[in-house]
This record gives sequence, C-alpha cells and structure tokens, in this order.
Amino acid sequence: MEVYLDNNATTMVDPKVYEEMKPFFCDIYGNPNSLHKFGAGTHPKMVEALDFLYEGINAADEDDIIITGNATESNNTVIKGIWVDKILNGDKNHIITSEVEHPAITAACKFLETQGVKVTYLPVNEEGILEASLVRDAITEETALVTIMWANNETGKIFPIKEIGLICKTTGVAFHSDATQAIGKFPVDVQECNLDYISFSAHKFHGPKGVGGLYVKKGSEVTPLLHGGEQMGGNRAGTVDVASMVGMGWAMHLATSTMALAYEKNHVSKLRDKLEAAILELPETIVIGGKENRTPNTTLISIRGVEGESMLWDLNQNGIGASTGSACASEDLEANPVMNAFGSDSELAHTGVRFSLSRFNTEEQIDYAIKVVQGAVKRLRGLSSSYAYAPESHKSAL
Amino acid sequence: MEVYLDNNATTMVDPKVYEEMKPFFCDIYGNPNSLHKFGAGTHPKMVEALDFLYEGINAADEDDIIITGNATESNNTVIKGIWVDKILNGDKNHIITSEVEHPAITAACKFLETQGVKVTYLPVNEEGILEASLVRDAITEETALVTIMWANNETGKIFPIKEIGLICKTTGVAFHSDATQAIGKFPVDVQECNLDYISFSAHKFHGPKGVGGLYVKKGSEVTPLLHGGEQMGGNRAGTVDVASMVGMGWAMHLATSTMALAYEKNHVSKLRDKLEAAILELPETIVIGGKENRTPNTTLISIRGVEGESMLWDLNQNGIGASTGSACASEDLEANPVMNAFGSDSELAHTGVRFSLSRFNTEEQIDYAIKVVQGAVKRLRGLSSSYAYAPESHKSAL
Repeated sequence: MEVYLDNNATTMVDPKVYEEMKPFFCDIYGNPNSLHKFGAGTHPKMVEALDFLYEGINAADEDDIIITGNATESNNTVIKGIWVDKILNGDKNHIITSEVEHPAITAACKFLETQGVKVTYLPVNEEGILEASLVRDAITEETALVTIMWANNETGKIFPIKEIGLICKTTGVAFHSDATQAIGKFPVDVQECNLDYISFSAHKFHGPKGVGGLYVKKGSEVTPLLHGGEQMGGNRAGTVDVASMVGMGWAMHLATSTMALAYEKNHVSKLRDKLEAAILELPETIVIGGKENRTPNTTLISIRGVEGESMLWDLNQNGIGASTGSACASEDLEANPVMNAFGSDSELAHTGVRFSLSRFNTEEQIDYAIKVVQGAVKRLRGLSSSYAYAPESHKSAL
Repeated sequence: MEVYLDNNATTMVDPKVYEEMKPFFCDIYGNPNSLHKFGAGTHPKMVEALDFLYEGINAADEDDIIITGNATESNNTVIKGIWVDKILNGDKNHIITSEVEHPAITAACKFLETQGVKVTYLPVNEEGILEASLVRDAITEETALVTIMWANNETGKIFPIKEIGLICKTTGVAFHSDATQAIGKFPVDVQECNLDYISFSAHKFHGPKGVGGLYVKKGSEVTPLLHGGEQMGGNRAGTVDVASMVGMGWAMHLATSTMALAYEKNHVSKLRDKLEAAILELPETIVIGGKENRTPNTTLISIRGVEGESMLWDLNQNGIGASTGSACASEDLEANPVMNAFGSDSELAHTGVRFSLSRFNTEEQIDYAIKVVQGAVKRLRGLSSSYAYAPESHKSAL
C-alpha cells in the first residue's frame, strides 16, 4: 500500500483542479496581456480564480492579491520590499520575526542582517506557540515589519495572529504572516486579523507547484521584487501562468469552502488523532509541543531512542511517506530548527517524525500506517544502542 | 480559420511537452526535497530535464542552470544580485544596457537608478542593431554589469553577443544576456559567447508558462533574489515545480535539436518571408529595421496610414492574433519603445504590426493571413484621414 503522509511538504494536485488547468496548456494558450482573442480567451477563468482567492481569505475588493511563483517569492517580496521602502532610505531599521519561521522568512531576514538590518527572532513557549505579548514588547520606533507565520509547518501549532494583528495595528507597524500552512486547515480571514500581507503556496492545498499568492492590503503596497511588465498592476512582472493561476483559484475554492474546512476539522483530524493515539500507546513517545492549538492534519511525534531518519527509512520501505522536518531543509541532516527552538536536547531534536495528512487519506491507510510504525519502532529500538541510555530530558517538551 | 502569429508574446505548449508534464500533477507529486520515494520519484525526469537544458545552451558541466519562475525573475536575479554584491558595498556603480531591452531589464534598471546606480542605455543603429563598439566605449572602471538582449522581441534583430562577450571578457566585466527570444530560433552557445549569465522563459519556446531558467557560469554566482530553502544549491529557494521543469526541459530539447533549428531556419523563415513579401507588395509598407540579422520567425512591418491597433482589431475579427508590441507592455497604447528608439516619428511608431510565427504555423494559415491583411489595409486606408497626409518621414527607417 502507498500512503502519503507528508502533506505539509507538498500535496497531490486535486484531480478537479487539474481538470480546470488542462485547457490552458495546448488550447487556450494566449498571453493574457495580448489584445487579441487568444489573449482575451484566458480572462474569464482568471477572473473566476481571483474571485476564489479573494473569497478564500476574505480579502476586501480594494485589496490586492498578487499571483507569484510560490510563498517563498511572496515572503521575499514583502521582506525586501519593506527593506527598500522603509529601511534603505533610513526611516526604520528593525524587523521582528520568530525563531521557528520557514527558511523563506529566516534566510531573507539573515540576508537583511548582512545589510545592517536589525532582526529580532522571538522564541516560542514550551507548547511551541509564539506569545503575542512578546511581539508587543519587541516593537520599537525602528520597527518596519512584524512577520510571524500563521501555523507552523513542523508542529502544526497555530499562532495568535489576531492578537498580533491588533498589536501591530495599534502601534502602526506593518504586519505580514506566512499563511502557507494555514490555508485549507482553518478559516483564514485577513480583515479580521488586521493583516497587511499574507503569503501562500498553491501546492500546499492541492494546487499545482510553481504558483503562490501575496495578499496586500490597500495602502500597504511595496516595491516589487520582480520589476518588468505591467502584470499584476505593476506589482509583479512576468507573463501570468494562466494554468497555474486557474489551478490555484480552484484549489483555494475547494480547500476553503465551509464543507472542506468542516471535513478537515472533523474527519482529517480524526484520522490524525487515531494515528497519534496508536503511536502514543508505545512507551516513551510524546507529541512535541502537545496537542492543543494545532492544524487538524499534523502531528510531530518524538519516539525516544529512534532516529527520525531511520524511522523514515522504515516507513519508506513500506510505502509510507513522512518527514523529519521541513522538506525545504530536509536534504541535510541538521537537527530540526523547530525542535531546537523548544530548547530541547538534541536527542529529542533528532527523533521527531512528522505525519501530515490530507483529505485524500483514508482510514484504511491510517490503520496500515499504524501497523508499520509499531513494527518499525520495535525493530529500531532493538537496534538502537542509544535507546537504553537515552536521557530522560526529552520529557521536558511534554 | 484561427491563425496564431504572436509567438513572441507566448507560444502553445507542444503536445509532447504536455505529455511529459502530465504525470507530475496527480501521480508523481512528491516534493523533490523529500527523502521518501514520493520525493525521489521526481528525480529521474528532473535530471533528464537538466541535461536537456545544459545541452540546449551548451553550458559546461560545472556551470549552474537555475530553474526560476520566468525570464523576468532570471533578469531581476542577475541585476539585483549584482547590485547587492558589487554596488551596495561600494565597489562599483554602473550598469550598461540598451534602449530596446524587454521591460524586465529596463524596469529593473530604472529601479536601480532610484537607488543611485548609474545606468547607460545604449541606442541601436538604423537597422535596430546594437553595435558592439558602443559597449566597449561605455565600459568604465565603475561598470559592474553589461546586460544586452540576444534577440529583440519586437524586430527579431539579433545582437552581436559574441563580440560583446569578448569585450566583456577582455575588460573583466560581468556579462548577462536576456536570451528569451533566442532559444529555438538559432544556436545559443553560452561558452562560445563568454557569457556569465543568460535568462530564458519556457513559454517562448513551446514550454509552459510560469517557468524559466538562469544560466550562471561557474564563479559568477550572485546573491539570490529568493532566499529560503536549499533548492537549486541555495541559489533559488522555493519548492521546485517539477511538472514545469520537466516541461521546460522537453521544450528546450525539442526547440534546440539540430533538426528543429534547421526547420526554423528553412521552413518557418520561408513562411515569414512569404507573409512579409505579400504585405510589402502594398504601397508604402516597410520592414522596420530591414531584413538582415533577424530571428527566422519575426517581422515588424509599418503600413503607412494604418494604426497598428486598428489593424490588430481587423485581424482579430478574422481569427488572427498578432501584436503591435511586447505583450508585456501592450495593455497601454504607448508607442512601441523599440520603434521610438529608432528615432522615428511617432506616426511610424504607431503603425508597426508584429507577426511572429512558430513551427506550428502552416502555409495554408499564411495564405489566409495574407488575404486578411490585404483586405484590412484596403479598408483601413479608406477610413484613415491621416493616410493622405501622412508624413514621408517614415521612410527614414528603411
């Protein structure tokens, strides 16, 4: 059996999404900016896609949603746009973020540090949550931007974006959230949360890879990252990838409907809980950061004495795809930065396995996965020289 | 009949290319960075695609080809990378380009000017060609980058990239070329031309929209535009769009094979010449910049007394797609910047119509297009109050 449990890394394109994309490769292939009907033929489905995107995140009509190549581009656009507009000109010199952001935020911030920008990396608490009060305390007159993820890719932990939005609004600081792991997991409402910007990637919610979005509140426009043609109102140059835009629109529509979000909350979470409960029956296993305030599809579990990489190998041999950390950082064997941020010992950091489900997983798949995990734990603990001597301290993250 | 003659704006995805992309939406959908087989399953076709790309532009094994979202991103990556690496740190302060670049170059340069960078915009001669000697004369000790397009999107004129490459090599200045209109039109050899960087977009050579490439010679790496994960050796973060990368690889393979380039040179050019000759039989028509040194598929024709926009309307009514200028700038009615660069009067600038063919055009289509153009010229000249009084000066561009 093949069981894909790595949906926080990427997802299968929903067959309905693919159906909607199909005509835009070999049939309706014009450039949307062209004046003839080959170009104009692309417009109705592009408009429909935009409508779906606005609806999916509750953007106001006067706000912008810019189609980008992925959330990484959206994140870089905001961070570097703010750098050019508010920092390079000497107005401000400070950005606030968290220690557990996706590399697309962290690496962009590290780059700004090489250019003399001051960056504050706020820690998460023992439950893996960033407390809003830390943001309030960190804001100074120099602060140009607060950028905090909506839900963490490793733990699924949901951050208090509404509270942070209120703090930013009150203090007049621009607020961006990387919402990549939030779309389709729970209702995302940019207006309610006083956001100036959010980023997302279609391939995290059953859309195609290579396309993402950047929400920009009216009045919060930044210097573009991609200068060139007048596409996206001049905010993001480059021929619009119609097939992918249409795909992202439909993916958003399918992932954020009332029914879809209810299914995620009631059904996907039930499968996740079943898998998690079965693993927790094994001795010395913990859910990193605990079970509260998580996206419905994610669990990050530490199994004492079992290297995450070894577990992945066993799972893979049995047709199951899971992860030890963000796929964007997984080609090296560095300890997971999120687990390091908990201040845990490195044994814990190396034993985390992330299972991230989707609406395409079935109960039969989960039952199979449970059996495979149980067998793998038994086998690997038998092999593990470190298990017998593993420090007790990994319970500190309970 | 439907006849698409706007292939410099974008192209139909080759059905073979689409066939190769298909499995990567709903079947082989893993993240290439994931360690399990869902991820690894993407690798063989990605490797094949890279091989095709290296072969297509004759890149050396030790050089990089970075997969980007489009040529606009590739162009911005080089220009802003050079800005960060060689200009912001105070080393250099000058960029050389031409007056007839695509907006993706021009707008990025204009942005750098707002940041205090000096930019030289070199003019083209009366044949629409940039003379290499102008580049040599413009280089100073402050020059950080020369960026000159390989072939012009409006006229199809091919620039002396090999000569300019030699000048840049001799003077030690980094050299970038926007090769978007060159790939698939004639052999592109980055080593022979001493290039440090070239940019291209798959959708200009029958690949998908939303994916492009940036060639970077070993030793010429620049600070990335997209910071984040370790994809593309850390040079371009963001989950790789496998379907599009595979599509671009195949599109490159199909467009740059010896047979394809011969077909372009011998067959596509013949259709272009037939269309052009028929239009030139009408009185007071000229090929802007003349017929020498052009890509085989492009003709930019001025028909005195006929507004380009009106001609497009008539063509469109008859199922033919053509253009008055770059699709990236065509939603406004500004005179074509390329024609302005010739120093011509604005009547000429407003009468240019660009026909750009592809290997998918047939002789039957061209015969039909000829009839439609002839009818449209007759009708529009009959309506045109300006035709009778149009200045003679538009012959200056002959």
